[in-house]
This record gives sequence, C-alpha cells and structure tokens, in this order.
Amino acid sequence: MSVYLVGAGPGAADLLTIRAWRLLGSADVVVFDRLIDPAVLAMARSDAELIDVGKRPGHSNSQDLINALLVSLGQTHECVVRLKGGDPFVFGRGGEEYEALAAAGVSCEVVPGVSSAFAAPAVAGIPVTHRGLSHGVTVVTGHARHGAAVDFRRLANPDVTLVVLMGVQHRASIVSELIEGGLEPSTPAAVIERAHMEGQRIQRARLDELEHLDVVAPAVLVIGPVAELEFSDINSITNSVSMLAS
Amino acid sequence: MSVYLVGAGPGAADLLTIRAWRLLGSADVVVFDRLIDPAVLAMARSDAELIDVGKRPGHSNSQDLINALLVSLGQTHECVVRLKGGDPFVFGRGGEEYEALAAAGVSCEVVPGVSSAFAAPAVAGIPVTHRGLSHGVTVVTGHARHGAAVDFRRLANPDVTLVVLMGVQHRASIVSELIEGGLEPSTPAAVIERAHMEGQRIQRARLDELEHLDVVAPAVLVIGPVAELEFSDINSITNSVSMLAS
Repeated sequence: MSVYLVGAGPGAADLLTIRAWRLLGSADVVVFDRLIDPAVLAMARSDAELIDVGKRPGHSNSQDLINALLVSLGQTHECVVRLKGGDPFVFGRGGEEYEALAAAGVSCEVVPGVSSAFAAPAVAGIPVTHRGLSHGVTVVTGHARHGAAVDFRRLANPDVTLVVLMGVQHRASIVSELIEGGLEPSTPAAVIERAHMEGQRIQRARLDELEHLDVVAPAVLVIGPVAELEFSDINSITNSVSMLAS
Repeated sequence: MSVYLVGAGPGAADLLTIRAWRLLGSADVVVFDRLIDPAVLAMARSDAELIDVGKRPGHSNSQDLINALLVSLGQTHECVVRLKGGDPFVFGRGGEEYEALAAAGVSCEVVPGVSSAFAAPAVAGIPVTHRGLSHGVTVVTGHARHGAAVDFRRLANPDVTLVVLMGVQHRASIVSELIEGGLEPSTPAAVIERAHMEGQRIQRARLDELEHLDVVAPAVLVIGPVAELEFSDINSITNSVSMLAS
C-alpha cells in the first residue's frame, strides 16, 4: 500500500511523465485539486475513486485535513495517487504531505513533474538560463502564506533570472522591492498566463510597467534579461491526448 | 519540418513526458548527448538516425557545430528531436540552439522536461520549498563556463534553498563564498549523485563538511534547512520501461 505524490506538470495532459500516466492508470483512488485538467483525470481507471480537495469559494480544505485524508486512504487502499500541479516538491506543499504520511508509517513515493516555474517561461521562448544573460534562476512565490514573506530586495540580482509564481496580486510591491534592491526599472519582464493551457497569453514589459498590465491569475512572472528573448516561432499549444485514446 | 528541443528528464526513462515519448517515436533523426539513457533512445523509431554529439575525451563538439548540425537537419528532415538531459531551457544551452534555429528560419518547438534541479533533491525526500524552512529556490551551476562566474556570496540566503548543478569540482570555493556571504557553516546540505539512475547515492552533511565528502560527478548539491528533512521512506528507483515494451 502506497501513496504516490505525483507531479501533473504545467497543464497540458501530455506533459505528464510516463510514470505519472502509468500510476494514474493503476490507482484505486486519485486525490486532486481543482486546477487539474479533465484530460489528466481521464487517464485514471474508469472505476477509480476521484476525490477533489480543491478549495471552493467560501470553503477551504485545510492542509491538515488533506494530510489526514491521505493517511487514511494510504492505510486502506493499495495504490493512492495524489496529483499536484507542476512538481509536488516545488511550492506544492508536497513536503507537508510526505511528512504526514511518513509520520503515520504510510509508504510514500514522490514522482517529480515538469514545474511551471520553467515550463511557463519556455512556452514564451524564454530560457531561464542563457549564456551571457543569466547564470541562474530563482523561483519564489509572491503569495505570502503562513507569515513567510519573501524579501524581494534581497533577490534583486541582475545575473539571476527571477521567476515568481502566484505573484499577480502583489506585483506592485514585488516590483518596488526589486527596484529598491537594485534592479533597473527597465529590466525586461514577461507575464505568462495559463501556460500550456487553453487561453494561454504572453505579455512582455519593462519591470516598472508590470503593475499596469491587465493580468489574470494563474500567471507566472519572469524578470531578467532573458525575458527579452523573443524568437520568431512560439510553441504551439498541443494539449492532445489522442495518443492515449488510440 | 521542425526541430523539437526535448527535455529527457533527470535519468529514468519513465520520467520522460508523454509528449517527449511520442515525438521520439516519430522522429526521423534524434540528436543526443552521451548522458542520455539507452532506454530512452530505445523509444526512437527503429529506422531513425541517432546522432551522438556528446563530448568524448580529448574531443569537443563545440556548441556552434551542434547548432549548425541542427539547422542543417531541420532544413532536410520532417521531424528532428534534439534530446537534452533534464529541461532544455535550464542549463541545457537550449536557448542557444533555439536562437540558431530561429535565426535560420527553422521551425522549433521546446518540450519542457523534468529538471534534475528539483528531481534530484526529491529522490532524497527533500522538497526544495517547505513551509517554515524555505520560501524559494535558486538554481545555479558551479561549473563556470564562458567567464560567467557565479558570485556565491550574493546567493547566501538562509530563506532560499540553493541547488548547485555541476558543482562537485569547485565545491570548496563555493562553500567558502557562501560562508563569507553569511550562511552558517552548520547549514544542512545534501549531495545526490546520479539521481534517478543506476548507482544513485545520497549523502548528507553540514555545509562546511561538503568538501570532505567523496563525491563522483554528476551530482547535485542542495544547501539549506530543507536538506535536513529525512523521511523514513526513500524513493525506490524504478527505471522501468516495461510498460513501453508491452
């Protein structure tokens, strides 16, 4: 009996890993959040139990409740898949679920996924590292939870690309902290909405123009010279699972 | 006619994405480096041309030559897959290949992959972000190429996990710069050799002990409080492609 914390990738169903797909096809129970694509859930066994633990307006399934659910399912089912958007160990709170399962003696395995921290910039043709422009990348969340506010002044580093997940709401203060910290207001930036999903949209701007853009979450902010790279050919969106159906 | 820059993931063949697998199965030509697992190459069409552009001792295929090869193949073949370990846009020099292809008018698409920057820590049970321990992650390379030396003093941030790829050789100077920059010598660290591959090995140590470990490249260094997380159950290595064979 095992619980698998499985990365579902950035959105498109065919950006799941083969291992994730195979596990979905054998799981008795699949626990997911609201953001998971229906085409991904369609990979599950037809008799699998699907449990949505995503937040609904006015409700909130606390992480403690989700942890308890996973422990309970892990103790009673052969194969439980806990699907997480992106990678379970990158802002997925997968560490907390892993911890709860391990503490309860439930066998747990992590299946890494494609993180939108890198895949969202990629869909805009932006490599997070690039010779002469960036020799590293920092990924943070702009949505301060649990009192752990990020000090963006400290992350102002012109040599390291900055990727901000869940940063749409607080982007004005993020930008001013970065400029206070020493980034040029003219630093190139890009905003990728709904990367690898229907309705994907890419906008480019200077750092100090970010707050004036009309942006709808979920979106990823990319800040640094690489955000200016713009090649002629942007990825097409192929959210196809035709191969799976055949 | 298109060239696909395809992430092959961290090592295990079943950590390829479904899209990568499907493209491998239809490519006329597959261009790869020495580090790609034979089980991945086995996903290619039996009549596909396989071209190894990996460095051999005493030789070096320069990036310019690889770029020129990709352009030439892209102009003459229907479907060219350029496989890159991990993600093509994270220290994969994929940006340079993309740039060369776009400049030559060759259609190019990026297929993101699972980056070992996150998947290597995960295999050791280490989430790169974790409530109360880390609210972000920085990924850099420790192998200074092209004169772009990373200033590690500037990356000494106890709130942000640091992942160093290709840092084995220069780890003594990396560690001293991080301590100069303000990291505690007792900061937890981990070294993951050959993540998700045969011969995987995980070692944990304090930051100031890193240089005394016996480490064989390729290895990923993880530095920060999350490196101390150690759950009871470490991932098993499943490098199985049985599903593909069936």
